[in-house]
Order: sequence, then structure tokens, then C-alpha cells
Amino acid sequence: MRLGVCYYPEHWDRNIWREDAKRMIDLGLEVVRIGEFSWAMIEPAPGVYEWNWLDEAVDVLGCAGLKLILGTPTATPPKWLVDTHPDILAHDREGRPRQFGSRRHYCFSSDQYAAESRRIVTAMVERYGQNNAVEAWQTDNEYGCHDTVRSYSPEAAKAFRKWLQFRYGDIAALNEAWGTIFWSQVYRSFDEVDLPNLTVTEPNPSHVFDFYRFSSDQVVAYNKMQVNIIRANSPGREIYHNFMGHFTDFDHFRLSEDIDIAGWDSYPLGFLDVEDYPAAEKEKFMRQGHPDFAGFHHDLYRGCADGRLAVMEQQPGPVNWARHNPAPLPGMVRLWTHEAAAHGAELLCYFRWRQAPFAQEHMHAGLLRPDNSPAQAYEEVQRAAKEFVDLKTQNESASFKSYAPKVALIFSYETQWMSEVAPQGAQWNYIRIVMQWYSVARSLGCDIDIVAPGSELDKYEFVLVPSLFHVSASALEAFSKTRATIFFGPRSGSKTETIQIPKNLAPGPLQEIFPLRVTHSESFPDFHTEHGKFAGEKVFSHIWLDHVETSLAPLVKSETGAGLLYRSDRIWMFTTVPDENFLYLALTAAQENSVGNIKSLPTGLRMRANGELQYAFNYNAEISDLPSQFFPDIPTTLIGAKTIFPADVACWRKQQN
Amino acid sequence: MRLGVCYYPEHWDRNIWREDAKRMIDLGLEVVRIGEFSWAMIEPAPGVYEWNWLDEAVDVLGCAGLKLILGTPTATPPKWLVDTHPDILAHDREGRPRQFGSRRHYCFSSDQYAAESRRIVTAMVERYGQNNAVEAWQTDNEYGCHDTVRSYSPEAAKAFRKWLQFRYGDIAALNEAWGTIFWSQVYRSFDEVDLPNLTVTEPNPSHVFDFYRFSSDQVVAYNKMQVNIIRANSPGREIYHNFMGHFTDFDHFRLSEDIDIAGWDSYPLGFLDVEDYPAAEKEKFMRQGHPDFAGFHHDLYRGCADGRLAVMEQQPGPVNWARHNPAPLPGMVRLWTHEAAAHGAELLCYFRWRQAPFAQEHMHAGLLRPDNSPAQAYEEVQRAAKEFVDLKTQNESASFKSYAPKVALIFSYETQWMSEVAPQGAQWNYIRIVMQWYSVARSLGCDIDIVAPGSELDKYEFVLVPSLFHVSASALEAFSKTRATIFFGPRSGSKTETIQIPKNLAPGPLQEIFPLRVTHSESFPDFHTEHGKFAGEKVFSHIWLDHVETSLAPLVKSETGAGLLYRSDRIWMFTTVPDENFLYLALTAAQENSVGNIKSLPTGLRMRANGELQYAFNYNAEISDLPSQFFPDIPTTLIGAKTIFPADVACWRKQQN
Amino acid sequence: MRLGVCYYPEHWDRNIWREDAKRMIDLGLEVVRIGEFSWAMIEPAPGVYEWNWLDEAVDVLGCAGLKLILGTPTATPPKWLVDTHPDILAHDREGRPRQFGSRRHYCFSSDQYAAESRRIVTAMVERYGQNNAVEAWQTDNEYGCHDTVRSYSPEAAKAFRKWLQFRYGDIAALNEAWGTIFWSQVYRSFDEVDLPNLTVTEPNPSHVFDFYRFSSDQVVAYNKMQVNIIRANSPGREIYHNFMGHFTDFDHFRLSEDIDIAGWDSYPLGFLDVEDYPAAEKEKFMRQGHPDFAGFHHDLYRGCADGRLAVMEQQPGPVNWARHNPAPLPGMVRLWTHEAAAHGAELLCYFRWRQAPFAQEHMHAGLLRPDNSPAQAYEEVQRAAKEFVDLKTQNESASFKSYAPKVALIFSYETQWMSEVAPQGAQWNYIRIVMQWYSVARSLGCDIDIVAPGSELDKYEFVLVPSLFHVSASALEAFSKTRATIFFGPRSGSKTETIQIPKNLAPGPLQEIFPLRVTHSESFPDFHTEHGKFAGEKVFSHIWLDHVETSLAPLVKSETGAGLLYRSDRIWMFTTVPDENFLYLALTAAQENSVGNIKSLPTGLRMRANGELQYAFNYNAEISDLPSQFFPDIPTTLIGAKTIFPADVACWRKQQN
Repeated sequence: MRLGVCYYPEHWDRNIWREDAKRMIDLGLEVVRIGEFSWAMIEPAPGVYEWNWLDEAVDVLGCAGLKLILGTPTATPPKWLVDTHPDILAHDREGRPRQFGSRRHYCFSSDQYAAESRRIVTAMVERYGQNNAVEAWQTDNEYGCHDTVRSYSPEAAKAFRKWLQFRYGDIAALNEAWGTIFWSQVYRSFDEVDLPNLTVTEPNPSHVFDFYRFSSDQVVAYNKMQVNIIRANSPGREIYHNFMGHFTDFDHFRLSEDIDIAGWDSYPLGFLDVEDYPAAEKEKFMRQGHPDFAGFHHDLYRGCADGRLAVMEQQPGPVNWARHNPAPLPGMVRLWTHEAAAHGAELLCYFRWRQAPFAQEHMHAGLLRPDNSPAQAYEEVQRAAKEFVDLKTQNESASFKSYAPKVALIFSYETQWMSEVAPQGAQWNYIRIVMQWYSVARSLGCDIDIVAPGSELDKYEFVLVPSLFHVSASALEAFSKTRATIFFGPRSGSKTETIQIPKNLAPGPLQEIFPLRVTHSESFPDFHTEHGKFAGEKVFSHIWLDHVETSLAPLVKSETGAGLLYRSDRIWMFTTVPDENFLYLALTAAQENSVGNIKSLPTGLRMRANGELQYAFNYNAEISDLPSQFFPDIPTTLIGAKTIFPADVACWRKQQN
Repeated sequence: MRLGVCYYPEHWDRNIWREDAKRMIDLGLEVVRIGEFSWAMIEPAPGVYEWNWLDEAVDVLGCAGLKLILGTPTATPPKWLVDTHPDILAHDREGRPRQFGSRRHYCFSSDQYAAESRRIVTAMVERYGQNNAVEAWQTDNEYGCHDTVRSYSPEAAKAFRKWLQFRYGDIAALNEAWGTIFWSQVYRSFDEVDLPNLTVTEPNPSHVFDFYRFSSDQVVAYNKMQVNIIRANSPGREIYHNFMGHFTDFDHFRLSEDIDIAGWDSYPLGFLDVEDYPAAEKEKFMRQGHPDFAGFHHDLYRGCADGRLAVMEQQPGPVNWARHNPAPLPGMVRLWTHEAAAHGAELLCYFRWRQAPFAQEHMHAGLLRPDNSPAQAYEEVQRAAKEFVDLKTQNESASFKSYAPKVALIFSYETQWMSEVAPQGAQWNYIRIVMQWYSVARSLGCDIDIVAPGSELDKYEFVLVPSLFHVSASALEAFSKTRATIFFGPRSGSKTETIQIPKNLAPGPLQEIFPLRVTHSESFPDFHTEHGKFAGEKVFSHIWLDHVETSLAPLVKSETGAGLLYRSDRIWMFTTVPDENFLYLALTAAQENSVGNIKSLPTGLRMRANGELQYAFNYNAEISDLPSQFFPDIPTTLIGAKTIFPADVACWRKQQN
Repeated sequence: MRLGVCYYPEHWDRNIWREDAKRMIDLGLEVVRIGEFSWAMIEPAPGVYEWNWLDEAVDVLGCAGLKLILGTPTATPPKWLVDTHPDILAHDREGRPRQFGSRRHYCFSSDQYAAESRRIVTAMVERYGQNNAVEAWQTDNEYGCHDTVRSYSPEAAKAFRKWLQFRYGDIAALNEAWGTIFWSQVYRSFDEVDLPNLTVTEPNPSHVFDFYRFSSDQVVAYNKMQVNIIRANSPGREIYHNFMGHFTDFDHFRLSEDIDIAGWDSYPLGFLDVEDYPAAEKEKFMRQGHPDFAGFHHDLYRGCADGRLAVMEQQPGPVNWARHNPAPLPGMVRLWTHEAAAHGAELLCYFRWRQAPFAQEHMHAGLLRPDNSPAQAYEEVQRAAKEFVDLKTQNESASFKSYAPKVALIFSYETQWMSEVAPQGAQWNYIRIVMQWYSVARSLGCDIDIVAPGSELDKYEFVLVPSLFHVSASALEAFSKTRATIFFGPRSGSKTETIQIPKNLAPGPLQEIFPLRVTHSESFPDFHTEHGKFAGEKVFSHIWLDHVETSLAPLVKSETGAGLLYRSDRIWMFTTVPDENFLYLALTAAQENSVGNIKSLPTGLRMRANGELQYAFNYNAEISDLPSQFFPDIPTTLIGAKTIFPADVACWRKQQN
């Protein structure tokens, strides 16, 4: 894995660029990402281009030996462009234009903005597309950030109607798919269909879901437009985009089909703060981030782009945008760096080179402080860079194929959207349930691939499906073909692809491989749990309960007699959301006929193998010991030891079995 | 009481209608309610009527022996109508049109919508008004649902000005009534008066209150317009409307003057979930609903329409619209059915026949599942239907007049609106206080009539007035004439009819019958209680405290010396909101000179007599015993026994005293 | 200190005015404030003036011997004015006009409103400016109430651009000051700059901060316009404005430069209720208000107007506008009255003479009830008025200069705005931190002056700077010159005047007087505290932590090794927000080389000297004893004694040291 940094030459005096470049090289960095917010500097007035400064920046950085990733500058159209074409602005759910003054102030459905984007991207790619220093491109920046995927503008309405027409062909098909006969909503033509905002009460869920699908497709199409320009004008350069954490408003699997490498921006502390964890957990990991935050996204985005992963922005210190912004525990920046490598990243860029003393992110740390002295992470990066050189030497033998993940977790953007559109219970939170399943599996020491529904599953021994509302024909086929043990969570197969109830009721098509039918479902408030007995322990579940008709005897029954867990041969199915211990017991019970090696890691420790290298990470603020079963009789480690210091790493060469 | 069901033939293939009708009859249903969301199917394009399908549906259902209630379809105007006349849309408090895409997307003040409503209702009534199968009509559907009574549209502003002109005659009277001299708000003409939304800070409370009264009147007038059309064209048919639970934005007493039977839609689980009960109570009754929810509404709406009550929609399983949607405990659907009969309902319709697999309510249970197999409630309905046949046989002797309720509770829509407009304390919640008084009286085993202020009170022995902000001349007369024991809660008589302070201060006109005057009042945060001693116990109150001048000695004094409860002859008056035990002790203390028979039922048990039949209901999830004083030496029961199973019912013939 | 009352003759029949005036005099009142909401009565139609009623009111009150303060009526423009010029309305953050129907419905940037204001103020001042009964004017009423300082109207946008042009001269300077190169926000001209609302995500903080400064300047300019008219037409009359509690949207120091006396409106109970105190504290002081609420504002506003202070509105009983509205504990109205005198007020007016039975404030108590009988506070006012006469006699010797406050607390409106614009941590609340420092110092018995940054500090022995984000040249000079002990809180000197990071990092210019530099800062969630050891005790801090480079040894180190408190000679600096005990220990540790006399008062007791009179106040609902060190061997008191009853006062003549 190479190391790099995000850099904004336009923020600094030209005099300092050369020294910056030299210090990057000295620090062990090989890559620099620039340009993604520079439109107003490149084109300060309509049609007036000022390449001079960027030419020089590219030249200085390139000559110093750095490889450049250039960002297309479309995330921040200049004020003059917004003033000339106010209809490029997105509209919010309240129907108001979302104004200039920050970033991402454009609507993915604006034809005008598409044209302007084509113009500026073409100009940039034509100028630098064959520059030797430029090894790659990044399209735009963090698509969807600040809730920008779904726009309720007139432009979006127009595009939505076209999309519907293309999808359904004639309006009768739409009426059928959405069930518009309900509440007298029948449409006579596509022109009658509005966006589903500002309705008196909840709009038709199929309508909203199609709007979400449409909105995702618009992002994919907009990105594809930029990709096409780059491919045509910058041969041999790879294309990245930088995704975000826990962001699901567009289908990252589909967008990734058009790029080469799925990058993402990793801010573990900020996300721990803004997300919904118990206070005790937030305090325990306040300066480390949640132990599964980075790992989950590495595995998810690696799965999006056929195994090609990068961290485009790595938090190097306190940020500015969370509700509270503590500093990483000393060691964490190095830990996150090694962890990205362990999960298969090819590149990790720190964000940013030097803290800008002005504007929205003036309190966002960099590798350098605003006065140009080294900040907190500088030394950790230096140390990690040296360790990378060493590890590369150690790891030159071929990867051990035997260490590829044996566990797949299926993640479905459509299930997330359906969960938002038709939750049926306020506690139901798909992404949180997915994270819980991921965490339990990681705490068992498993390496995990995260894959899209319908992916080939033959190479796995365990397949985890926390929930999959709509089971497509290809997904059913993959489940049928694999010989893996499969665990399904509740609500799987409960919807058609337009959010209707399947003709044969839930779990719909899964009834072909699992002899069970849902008669009715309950959702519960947070204070209600169901409980039963499993493996000699009292186990708990919550949030949801499917009542079923089946010939199977339940493995676990609730105190009121409802089955909570069923098994038919190699397939297990929960009718409820198990808590972590219940899930842990179920996964270990399935061990005998599967991957084996399932034991539990102490809190805060995580393992991950990459090729022949086995890593262990200590997310705790205290010293922690690896249990012996995870650290068998090892002659020598490459980094660290069985006893791992706070925020520290161990790495050793895996033994061939 | 007859049983029926809500049915949407337009959702299903015509082939299945005949079988549906037969199964309804077989199940013991006699009535079917149809049509209330069918405008777009009846008139798919402007002026193009398609009666064919509805003719057939009416024919099939009628021929099977079912009696039909037809709903006018005005709750869901079609998209083409909204596109043609966008000014029919209501506007929300934020000043925005409330868009098409769900239901109730119309403004009660739109002249255009009134005209369109007249047109479609006339067409429908002319076609089916004299059809033999049609025994009744329902106007529109759930007036006010989704906060639709109060519209802030230009049409509403225009109508409001007319309403004010009619009410006040000249603008000087309005200025006087509202006290517009305060903050320089004097109006020179009615044309200057706007709707009271989007003001800088709180608008004039008299202004807002008149807007609330106006909005209620608009609903009444709109309904009356439909009623007139039906009366003219469908002689001999009765008219229903289906009210909602805990909904107070219009005056249901006034609207009910124009219809024949007050129907309401009973969803006990959904309401328990969305309303503000303590978590422990929510968990205890999660699958049963609050034991007083249905009873309260039966008694209120029976009081609205001179004793004529129906349940137009009865929850038969999990619904889709609450935050959490559990399933009724087995038995509850049968219990709710008997309870409606006990409270005097003439008809109860389950909602709905078969669960629709599409659109907003695809997760709302019916009597049948979407695959046409019987759902959870089917058998319970079957059992209840049989029991009804038996009970009817048993109950053929005349009703015992001696068992008519001896307790009246006065409910005032105006007090609710004044409480919203001028709460003076954030904990003050009129409807919640009313529910508390109702619950205490029900837990004492009392049967209760809920009546409007000003109603004749002579036939009662106990009158409960949890609060009555404005005491009108007729209300004062009724209080003066009756010989009943009356309990007043705080703030009674504290406002004039335009929310001014009475010239003689609170309790205003009540000073004629109670020698006490309020000098000033306090409202408290939730953490503050007052306490005193009563009947040997420490008693608590909260939320509110009136300080008074009076010749009476307080029955209870707070620790700081304020009187909490006063009595003058047959009238008792609280200066504060008593907690349940304080209220219980006060009611029982008044027992000697009143109805007697006041004892307390165990939690979750409720009693109710109808004619000579005495019912008892167990809302608990556990077996419960009726105390002996409520179950005197009874030779035989018609249903159940002294020991009542969870969600079960007992019924016996009352003994003549 | 004189006593007065707020009076609205227009609310009452003229017949009662004469009696009202006589009762005021009899009660001991000398001043009456009238007129501030009377525009619609003075000018009922455009250009039609009706002075008759006001002439008579002024005459009646003046003849009775009362001195009048006339309010300009601009806080409530009449409806006809709004209808004629809708562009006088302010716009809210959502971009909507804030409508007529309450008060303060105007935009400070409206040229049209400025013209109308000039017209009505001129007319009023020309009529009464030389009237003998009129001794003073109040401009408008409670500038900024209901969030009205910041308007997002087109008029405001226009004025903002002019303001920016004036401030920055050319657009390049603005781009530099705001750092618009970040996120491509570069402007080409001032015309391109919009107001910073409705942006996609957070706008540029320098942009928002300038908008806040601009908005404050608009208030100052609007007030100045009125002041100029009064000065020109009403020679010899003094000018007041009535400020509010804890209101910081404009710079009260700057506005006060143009008036003579800083008045404010004191509602201790309402503020306790709506502000963010722990429930236990809210309950303890529910009927008294927070013991530091009035004192803080007395000290702050006295500091605004060079020592000239008045209370323009004093709560006399329950109010109507808080969430909960209890009544003052008997005695509190008298206590608040004496306390205002102790803090140097020249005048205190009760709000209002008689409770109005109508409109928004019909539940707001007055000295009289709506039926004209004395309300709760009447007797307390009578008693206080008599005591004032006695004290004046006792206090005729010259003030002891030695008792002027030795402690200054620096309060910065700009720091408050910067805290709102760039909090960097959700727990950071500048005004709350200031209140905490003030409370700790008051509980030590200190009298305090609150002064603006840059004020001369030579006369103080202790200077408290809870935080001061931007340290101006004049502020630095004052800190450098004084020989006082100075305590700085965290974040001091952390920003430039346009919210950039100082070139030499935080604490910026303070590095000239304190050898320490901040490397990075952390903000914490509410559940995280840092702790260390100081003066033998475990001490805690929270919210914020600056990590520093310094040659100084920390006086306190956190458990993770960070310095929490540093000292260099006479300057002490916290890197964190200390809790109250930590701050208390630090202040007392600094005692040796400073004011001395630092001991702690029991909870709820407060002391304050004015000239030779020493007061003590008991805010508790229980009897409390003054500790001996605060009540040395005193031969005789003027009011009360060492043991103070609930809500009572003690006062004695200070002994010369």
C-alpha cells in the first residue's frame, strides 16, 4: 500500500510549494491528491481559464517525484455560474433551492449543470490527461455529501418522469406496480406524476422507492459522464471516487462498475460522535473510533470495485464537523494506516497536508499545523511509512490463497431504501443491524467480504444476510447454488421489487429453499424484548418478530411460543433481530459444518489477514492480550507482540496449514 | 349490534367478489362499507363516469344478502382535479400547499372544491340513493385526519374574513373582543385581518381561537352540504361519519347534529403507541391497547349523536401507521367487539376484509391475508358473531332503565382549543386530564355518559368537569339546576368566550354557585408537585395551582398553605390537577350523598352495562379475578366467569335491585 | 433609586386614569413609563394623528406629580403600514416574511421602515419633547426580542453588501479575510455576496460572523437615528432603552454609547424556567429565580452605560411567556427591588400597573389585578418604597470609594457570536461559561464590574476572562498595563477578527504576555471529563482541552498528562473549562497576591455593596445565616439581621477599614 496526502496548493503561497513537495517525499509519501475544489481558481470568470497556477503546481509536485491524482472540480461550481444559471441548484424536501455558500450546490438532474460539468472536466482532462505526473483522476468529491443525492427541484421532477417512462413504458404498468388504485391515486400519464415531497401524509411507498432508485441512477449517470470524458482523454490513468462512511443514498456497487478503484474517506472519530452508539461505548472509543467502522467500509468498498480499494482521506487529528471533536489517541493514525493495508487498500492519503487557517475547516487538523510545524500525526506517518517499506520486503512471497475470506456478508442498498420508505417499525434500522452482524463476525476473528445481492457465493463457507427485503432471481440462484451455510435475518424476501407483498407472502422466493411462510409480523418499541433458550443460555431479541407457518421445529421459541430461529439443512433463518449474544451463539452452533475457527476476541481487539500477513489491532486505550488461539506459537513477529499496547498493532507471517 | 366489514372491490379482480360476499355472510357479517376512496375509479377523467364496476359490486354484495354503507369519495380527489384546480389544496402552517400524493389533499374553504364535491356526491347519490341494497351513507372519511382541519391557504383567509364579519358585524366589535389595542394591532376593516400563522412571536390568542372555531365550522358546513344532497336523493337512508380517536380539531357535537349515527375508527394498539403514556404502561398493554381508549370514545361519540353509535373501522391485527406495530393479543379483537356492544354501538365494521398487498397500507392487517387465507382475527370474529346471536336471544326483555349511567363527564372542544391557544403552562394538557378523570371513574366501576357543556344534567347523580374554561349561560344553568354532585377541576370559568379574563375574575360565572375567587394562578414544571393530607393519606397534585379568596375552609391544604380542594354543599372544586389517588379519594368521599357503589376495580379490568346485560373485560395479559362486590352471587353467566382469562370477556344478566 | 411603573392608559377607560395616578403616588412611585406600543392609537390611519388621548394621559399623570418616560412606538407598526409597505417585514432564516400579528414585525435594514420611524418619532418628540412632565425617553422596546436582530430579507441583503463594501473597500480584501479560496467561493464583486442562509451545508464562518456584526450594527444605527431626533427636539431629557436578559445578538456596549442610561427588563422566574439549568436547581429556585440572574445583568448593563443603570420592567408576579409560570415567593419582589439598588440602579419600574384582561399577556400579573384590586406584589412594593425613603436618609454621607468593585469580568459580544458561528464542540456555550465564572466569584462575596474587552483595567485587582476568542490590540494593551491578577479561560486569543487562526497559533497576541502556544484542541461530549489534582483535591474540567507547548510547568495535570492550568507571574490560564470547584480553588489560590477577602457564601446567599451600604440577599426558600466573616461585629443593621428569612434582605452601613 502506498501513502499519499491531500493538498491544496491554491491555499498557499507558491513559494512554499517546492518545500512542501520535498517534505512529502521525505516523509515517505508517494502520491498527492489535488484540485477537487478549484473551479473558481481555474475559471475565475465565465470562459476565462487560468491554468498557470495549476500547471506550476503539477510541475513542482511531479518533479519532486510525487504521483498526482487530479480531482475534477465539479463539487463546487463558482458563484458566477450559479448566478447565471440558478436552475442548477438542487431543491430540498421543503421545496426550496439549496443556495450557494458552501459546497455540492448542484442538482444531479440539471441539464445545464451537466453541460457545464462536461465543459470544465473536458478542459481539465485535455490539459493534464497525458501529463506524466498525473497517474489518476478522482471524479467530483463525496457524491451525496450533505444529503445531496435526492433533489426536489423542477429539473429533478422532469428527469424523474422520463426515468419512469423508460422503466415502465406505459402508465398502466406504473399504476399496477405502485398500486395507485389505493387512495384514488391513479395516473393517466407520466406527466401527472410529481415528486413525493410535501404530501399531506405519507406518500405511496413504491413512488418514494422509485424516486430513491431514480436519484441513485442520476448519480451513477452523472459520474459515468465524467468517466467517459476521462477515459477518452487520459488514456492509462485510473479513476477513483471518494465515497463516505455509512452513506447509502446511492448504489455504490453500481457506481463502482464505472470506476477503477473505490476510494473512501475515513474519519473514525467524527463518525463515532455523530452516530447512535450507547454513551459508554462512545466514551470507551472516543479517541479511537469504533473498532468496526473502518474495517466495515474497507470490506464494503473493496467489494464494490472488484477488490480495488483506497482510502482517499484519512483523519490525521481532530476534525471540525462532528458535534464533538476529540484528538486521536497517540498511535491511532498509524493503526488506521496499517488496518487499511490489512484490508487490502492500495493507497491511503492523509487529509490534509497542512491545516488551513481559514474558512469552514480551519479547525480540521492536517499533517502540519497552520504555522507549518509538524502536527500530532506527522511522526506516526513517518513511522508507518518506514514499516511499510520493511513489510513489503518481508511479504514478497506470493499471497496465500487459503487466507481469502471464507465469510461473505450481503449488503443491499435497495434494502436500506426500502427500510427508509416502509420501516413498519421505528426501531428498524437496516444499516445498524448490518453493522451488528458484521461486528459479531469480526469479534469471532473472521475476515469478511461484503458483496452485493446476486453475487457468486461459491467460494464462501459462511454467508450472512442480516436482511434482504427483495430477493431477486439472481440472488435466489446464488443462495441455491452455494454450499455455504447461510444465515438469514428477518424480513428477507418480504417485498417485491416495487414494495408489494409477494403473492406467496414473505419470505417470497426464499420459500423455494426454505419451508416457511410468514403469516404476520410485529414491530416493537425499544423497551420490548422477546426471549428464549438457546445452547443453555437465555437469549434475547427485539425490534421485529415474524410469525410463521412451517413444518420445521423452531430451534428457539419465545416465552409466548413464537419461533425465533429455524434451520433447514445448511440454511438458518431468524424471525427476529437477535441481540449480539444470540447471534454469536447461533453462528458458533453452525460451526461444526462450516469454517471452524470461531472463537471470540476480547473487546476492542480486531484481526485481519492480507495474503500471508496476519494483523492484530488494539482499539482499546489499555494494553490487551491476544488470546492464544489467535496467536499460536509464533517464532517471531514483524511488528509488535502478543501483548498489544493501546492503539498499537501486531503483525506476523501466517503459518501455512 | 350488527357486524360488518370495510371492503374495497376496486382493489381485487371481479372474479373474486362473489366468493368474498359469500364468505362475509358465512362469517356472520351483515354489513359492508365500500366506496370512500374510489373517486378516480368512478370518474377517471373529468366528466367521464365509469359506474359499471361499482354497479356490479353493489349488485354482487347486495344479492349475497349484505347491507351496504356507501362512502362519498371526497377524501381523495383525483390527480386530474388537483392539476385543473390547484387552489383546492390546503396550505400548511408554513404557508405551503399540501400536495397530492396521499389523501385529504383539499381545503375545507375552497369554493371550487365544494362545487366539485357537490357534483360527485350528487352523481353518486343519484345513482345509488334508492338502491335496495344501500342502507346508509358515510360522508367523506375521517374529517381532519393528518391535521387537515386548519388550512392556511388564501381561500381559507378569504372565508375567515367572511366568518368574522358575520360573527362580529363591525370591526370595532372584533377589536374589542380580541383586545387588539394591545401591541397596536387595531384593525380598520375585516379585510385587514390575516390568518394567524408565521407571526414574529405568539399571535393574539383570541385571533387564533376564532380561527380554530372558524376551522371547525368549515368542517361542519362542508359535511352539512353533503348531508343535504344525501337527504334529498336517498330517502330513508341513514348517514354516518367515521370520527377518529383523540381528535379534537373540530366540534364533534356540532357536526353530529347533522348526521344520524356517530361512527368512529377504533385502533387501540396504534394509539397506545403514538400517545404519551409511561413506558411501563405501554409495555403492559402493548398488545391490548389502553383499557379506557375504546370506552372513552364509545361514550364520547354516543354522546355526540344522541345515543347512536357505531364503530366504522375496528383494528383486526397489526396496523402500519404507528411507530411500532405489534399484533393484538389473541382474544382482543373479540374483546373489543363485545366492548363496543356493551357501550351501546349498533354496528361494528372490521377494517378491512383483505389486506392489500400494495401502497401505503400494505402492512395493515385484514380479516384475510393478501393470499386470501384467514388472518389472525378471522376466528375471533366468527366466535363473536355466534355469541352475538346467542346474546340477542338472551336479551329480549326490555332494557332496565335503572342501569343508565348515573355519571356524566363534560367534554368541551372549546376548552381543548383554548388550552392549545393559551396553555399558560407546558404541562397543561386538557385531553390528558380528561382521560385521567375518565379512568379514575371507570376504575370505580362507573358507567359514564360524556356530554357537551350546557347539556341537561338532571338525570345524573355525579357530574365530572375536569375543566371548563368558558362557562356559558346554558352551562351555568345546567349546573345550577341539577341536584347532582359536581366536581370541577381547575381553570373552570377562567375565560370569557373570546379568551379574556372574566370581569369578576375566575371562576367567572361559577361564582354564582360557588363562593370563591381566583387571585392568581401558577403553572409548574413536571418535576414540581404540591402535596397535602386528605382522608388520612398524603395526596399529590401538579401542573397547576389557583390561589383563591374564599369564605370556605379548604378540605386539603398544600404544604405551603394553599387550598387544593374546596367544597360548598353539593359542589366540589379542585384548584389544582389532582393525581389519580387524590381524585379517587375525593370521589369516594363524596359517595355518601351520591351514587354509592363506588369501589375500585383491579388494574386492567373494566365493567360496563348495556340494558340488562352486565359485561366485564380483562385487558390484562394475565388471568384476573373480578372482586366480589362487582360480581355478586350470580347463578349463571352468559359468557365467561368471575375469573377472566387474558383478553377475555364475562357477561351476565344484571339483577334487578 | 426611584421606583416607577409601566402603564398603558390606552387599555383603560379615561375615567380611571386620575385615580390610577393618585394610587401610584400613594404607593410611593415617582416615575411612569408609557406609550411604547401605541402607534396604532396615535396614528390610526396613514397620516391621521390622534394626540388627544395621549395629551390627556400625559397631563393627568404629570399633574399627579409623576415623571414620565415616553416610549417611541416603533416596536409595533400598525397593520395599515405593513399592508402599504410589505417590504418593511423582516425575513426569517427560512427566507419567509415574518408576518404582522404580534410585535417587532420590521426589518432593521428596511429604508422604508427607517423613513416611517423617523416620521412617527419626530411627530411624537415634537409634541412632547419639551413637556415638563416628560423627563426622559425610551427608544423602541426590547431591540432584538423574538430573534429579530438578524433578518434574511432582500432589504437586509442589500444593506449587507453596502456594509461589506464599506468595511473591506475592495472585494479582494473580503476574499482574503474570509478565505473564500476554500471550496471555490471566491467573489468577483460585492454584488455577488448573498446572505448566509439556506446553504447546502455550513456556510463560511467569516461570512456568517460578518453578517452577525452587520446585524448588530444595523440595530445600533437604527437606535442612533431615533436618538438623534430626540436629542434635537427634547433638550435635557435623558434617553433609555430596555435591554433583555441573556440576549446577545447585538453589541450592547456599542448601542449604549448613544443612550444615557442602560435599562433592562428583569424577569427572574421566566428565565430560570426557559434556560438550561439542572432540574434540582430549577426546583430549588422555582419561585425565586437564579441568584445570579439579576445581579449579572445589573453589572453588565451598568458597565455598558458608564455606570448608569435602570430596571425598566420588573416582574411583579407570574408571567405568561415561560413554559411554566409559577408565582414569586412572597418577599421576592421586594428583594429584587433592593438588589437593583445595591447594584447601582437609579430607577426600577414594575411591569405593569394593572394586568390587562385581554390579548397575549392576559395572564401576566401587574401590581393590580384586572378587577383593580391589589395583586400579590402591591404590599411588597409599598414596603420597599418606605424602606427606600429611610435608607436615603441613612445614606447621605458620601459613598466610600474604597468599596468600588475590585473584580472585573470581561464580557465579549464578539466571542459569543464567534462561539455560535464556530463552536467546534456542541457543549461549548460562552454565555453559560461566563455565568459560571460570575457565579463562582459572587459566591466568594465579590462585587463585580462587567466590562468590554479593551477597557481600562488599572483600577481592578482581579480580572476574569472566561474566554476571549479575538484579542484586539487594545485588549492586549489593557492586559499588559494592569497590575491585576488575570485569569484566562480556554480559547482566548484563538481567532483573528475574521475567524482565522492567528499566524502564531492560539493564544495569538497573548503569547506576548504568556509563554505558551496551543498545538491542537479537543472538544468533548458531555459525558467526558478530565481530572487532575489541585490544592490537595481532585478537580474536574470538561467541554474543551487545549494541548500546549510551553516552558511553564502546569499547576494541574490531567490523568492523561495534559496541562489544565498554567501560571506565569500574575497571569493564570486554563486550557480547559474548569468546573465550579476547580475554578473556586484556583481563584482562592491566587488570593495571596490579590484582593483577599475571598471566602465562600452559603448557597443562595448573595452580597453586594453600594457606596457605604452593604446588602445581603437570601434567595433560598429557607432561613439562612450569614457566615461571620461576611457579617463582622455589626452594632446595628438598617434592614434585617445576620439571620435572613426566606426571600428577605439585610442591609447595614459598611465599616471603614
